[in-house]
Amino acid sequence: MCRWMGWIGQPLLIEELLFKTDHGIVDQSMHSRLGAEPTNGDGFGLGWYGVGDGPGVYRSVAPAWGDPNLRDLAAHVASPLFLAHVRAAIGSPVQQTNCHPFREGRWLFVHNGFINGFRDLRRDMMLAMEPDRFADVEGSTDSEVVFGLALTFGLETDQLGALERTVGLVEALAARHGVESAVQASFGVSDGECLWAVRYATEGTPRSLFASEDADAVRRLHPGNERFEQLTKADRLIVSEPFSDLPGVWEEIPPSSAVTARPDGTLEQRPFVPVAP
Amino acid sequence: MCRWMGWIGQPLLIEELLFKTDHGIVDQSMHSRLGAEPTNGDGFGLGWYGVGDGPGVYRSVAPAWGDPNLRDLAAHVASPLFLAHVRAAIGSPVQQTNCHPFREGRWLFVHNGFINGFRDLRRDMMLAMEPDRFADVEGSTDSEVVFGLALTFGLETDQLGALERTVGLVEALAARHGVESAVQASFGVSDGECLWAVRYATEGTPRSLFASEDADAVRRLHPGNERFEQLTKADRLIVSEPFSDLPGVWEEIPPSSAVTARPDGTLEQRPFVPVAP
Amino acid sequence: MCRWMGWIGQPLLIEELLFKTDHGIVDQSMHSRLGAEPTNGDGFGLGWYGVGDGPGVYRSVAPAWGDPNLRDLAAHVASPLFLAHVRAAIGSPVQQTNCHPFREGRWLFVHNGFINGFRDLRRDMMLAMEPDRFADVEGSTDSEVVFGLALTFGLETDQLGALERTVGLVEALAARHGVESAVQASFGVSDGECLWAVRYATEGTPRSLFASEDADAVRRLHPGNERFEQLTKADRLIVSEPFSDLPGVWEEIPPSSAVTARPDGTLEQRPFVPVAP
Amino acid sequence: MCRWMGWIGQPLLIEELLFKTDHGIVDQSMHSRLGAEPTNGDGFGLGWYGVGDGPGVYRSVAPAWGDPNLRDLAAHVASPLFLAHVRAAIGSPVQQTNCHPFREGRWLFVHNGFINGFRDLRRDMMLAMEPDRFADVEGSTDSEVVFGLALTFGLETDQLGALERTVGLVEALAARHGVESAVQASFGVSDGECLWAVRYATEGTPRSLFASEDADAVRRLHPGNERFEQLTKADRLIVSEPFSDLPGVWEEIPPSSAVTARPDGTLEQRPFVPVAP
Repeated sequence: MCRWMGWIGQPLLIEELLFKTDHGIVDQSMHSRLGAEPTNGDGFGLGWYGVGDGPGVYRSVAPAWGDPNLRDLAAHVASPLFLAHVRAAIGSPVQQTNCHPFREGRWLFVHNGFINGFRDLRRDMMLAMEPDRFADVEGSTDSEVVFGLALTFGLETDQLGALERTVGLVEALAARHGVESAVQASFGVSDGECLWAVRYATEGTPRSLFASEDADAVRRLHPGNERFEQLTKADRLIVSEPFSDLPGVWEEIPPSSAVTARPDGTLEQRPFVPVAP
Repeated sequence: MCRWMGWIGQPLLIEELLFKTDHGIVDQSMHSRLGAEPTNGDGFGLGWYGVGDGPGVYRSVAPAWGDPNLRDLAAHVASPLFLAHVRAAIGSPVQQTNCHPFREGRWLFVHNGFINGFRDLRRDMMLAMEPDRFADVEGSTDSEVVFGLALTFGLETDQLGALERTVGLVEALAARHGVESAVQASFGVSDGECLWAVRYATEGTPRSLFASEDADAVRRLHPGNERFEQLTKADRLIVSEPFSDLPGVWEEIPPSSAVTARPDGTLEQRPFVPVAP
Repeated sequence: MCRWMGWIGQPLLIEELLFKTDHGIVDQSMHSRLGAEPTNGDGFGLGWYGVGDGPGVYRSVAPAWGDPNLRDLAAHVASPLFLAHVRAAIGSPVQQTNCHPFREGRWLFVHNGFINGFRDLRRDMMLAMEPDRFADVEGSTDSEVVFGLALTFGLETDQLGALERTVGLVEALAARHGVESAVQASFGVSDGECLWAVRYATEGTPRSLFASEDADAVRRLHPGNERFEQLTKADRLIVSEPFSDLPGVWEEIPPSSAVTARPDGTLEQRPFVPVAP
Repeated sequence: MCRWMGWIGQPLLIEELLFKTDHGIVDQSMHSRLGAEPTNGDGFGLGWYGVGDGPGVYRSVAPAWGDPNLRDLAAHVASPLFLAHVRAAIGSPVQQTNCHPFREGRWLFVHNGFINGFRDLRRDMMLAMEPDRFADVEGSTDSEVVFGLALTFGLETDQLGALERTVGLVEALAARHGVESAVQASFGVSDGECLWAVRYATEGTPRSLFASEDADAVRRLHPGNERFEQLTKADRLIVSEPFSDLPGVWEEIPPSSAVTARPDGTLEQRPFVPVAP
């Protein structure tokens, strides 16, 4: 079922959010409260921007709660923008290439949810990708193909538009195959500058998704944390599931909408409307 | 935390009990009901007797629920006596050498529970092992040392007595170190002929442990299963946690007691009384 | 570059050929002599027929030389027909789903070699598979797609013909894409009754492939092995690389030819001629 | 038999030395020239100083040559001081806790070589450790115990002296057990400020060990590398095996000697003389 989180703001030791936060994403790997299952133990991934060209990615098939390398990496890498994901496999193998985030150049992509009937739609979805991207598919998840489609449909220049066209295509293919409730998703995307997030389901309530209110809210969330005392208005968290139960700190992103978090701290929200091809 | 199960009886495809049973041990790796935590995802192990010398052992750090090799092995190996264990690590690393069952010659050993204050007792416990066994310790769990002590104290000729002396020693060392509630345990032991099980805690209620009532009970448990229609009175299951909620099928093994399941189907019960060295 | 071996004959403890043989396949994982590289450390697989429905498969990303589970499995499973494979990855990820053998129902498939320019041919090759098989591709190797094509082209009824049509198709696609020397291969296939092996390269010398001469030869190969003293004329080995340097024991399978090893010990050889679609 | 390398100097993207160097440590994981075996495929480790408290450590049981996480980590972490190690297991299990470097607080330790007869000496060696360090042993290698002994004997204040006392103790224990040629070693140690290296064998030629001559030498070693054009006299490499065959670049560290590389670029050499306890 998966859970993910994104940080954009001042450079932060990654462990501050992965391990030193009440009910952070690593805790959610074993004790998710809002997910379909409490356990997200089928691997995890971390993608971060910082030193070196493009994002670094660390993915493992170990459950996030028990991986000593993740703990060490998080304690020794600082980043102004990172995405973390814990996975609950629903059918596809537990392998690194099926772990999120997926990467292409400067771009990272995470997905919580699934393409219904993916086994029936997979071939048509992969055919709709640019042939060159087809050749680079390494794993067997729906999410990697969704990312390949989004790149095919212009993700690098029109992020939300590309995702609308991707979802529209998947829904059209699903209709052709008689598959209902095609898309269930929250998506996270970044190029190292901005962080985009989408909450959408073809039918029913989409996966949960929240944004932190503003720097003051985050500070209230971690009153004893000296680092967070330094928070500015440019800092923002987007998460599948709130890190704590403090009321008034998290803003739920409504179904069928998308947000863009920018480096200056602005958070733009707009409707997310799939576009049939 | 851990959960384990043992089978003794007619040769059975291992998958019948690992995968084709309602709430079997693999299901308990994600959804334990009676354990301290529902998740036992820090590796697993299977030890079986059959073809070849002594028991075969398959251990992995992957969660049992998602390991394709376990599924295949269980579907293609038949055995008249096997032990399976799913692990929830409490401090020690997730590595194959920390997975149960542990093996020595013909002997297999599983443990659900822990030695309280093991960090403080470890050195003295290891010193009490035969020096030659000390040299063969591969992992870092309390359970492996408990097994080494039991072998030192005569497990191969007096199974329950050796475990009573082991627990007595650990409790004595704990007292010397000011550690309370030293032992929390259910143990399973086999030599390929019999299956011994112990339920004991120095203080409080020990880990849960159940034995199947008799062949009729197991048949009632799986009414649609043709294989189980063939069950005889020589077949017996011992489990940390019942495979199903059917009333009247499982006999709880009382605290501070031990059972011996023999190939002829008899199940002897006796008190388990630690003996200080 | 990979190495593989197949056994057909009387039931044998798998370790006899994997571990107790001079320069067996596990030794070849570190010290291959005839391969393009001495090291085949990017995972391995074992597929065997015996107890349970269809073949069992054990695949791991660990190097074969150091995997304790493989050692144990081999020491405790007997089989009259099995295939083992050690992998040297050339580009595609080290993951279980990229390890051989691949399986479909009763069928196992191993491949030593590669499809040249696979990145360019992958999409067209996958499109030529039955759509239903496309949906089941789990990894990202050329070999898995070759197997899917062979199944599409009738492997289950005409084994060598299907492989000839598969290779013919790949060569035709390669020609269309301007790719030279398309196929470099030894293939091994089994349904649990017979063992088929192909040695072929579009251009140049194909990967090495040998068959054991006959039971007497195998006996001479292991003079001290009591088990092999029992060998009958129905026993046969097919290997990428001879297990020992004894002269007169191994028959090289010529380039562009195929063999069928039957349960009665016969070994039929015939030309292997790709058929363009 | 293992290979290691250490860097001290200006902050460097780790990949410059791990992946972008001719015959670097990752290449040595498959193609070692001076080691006892060409293959060092039983796991690896990287310890680095930089962001966060103390050193970060990444260890994996995968062969270094095929681990995508190592490649990514190396491409996105810069460090002024790091140690990398590739392992060839000789008996002990392939598990993360047996991979180097070992860490204690600010200290990192790597070892190439072995304690002869470790099975016989292990108990006495572990008993000679401070009891508190005994409790923290996680793996089963000789090297981890050597590190524990060195810490017991004052590594944190007298690095080379502590190692001399450790080796002296091991040789004394070996003599008592009738074990010959007790120690075969190159050691690497760091606290994030300096880098110490030892080359020693009780008998015969110790494992190879080299230091880079000076900045000019390193520049000559990588003529096309812009980053190395920036090298200063404070930069130093210590390696089990030269990265390239360029003559005049590497200084062999003599048997029974030790070096201290300081942040100012000085390299002090002195004899290494074990001290019996």
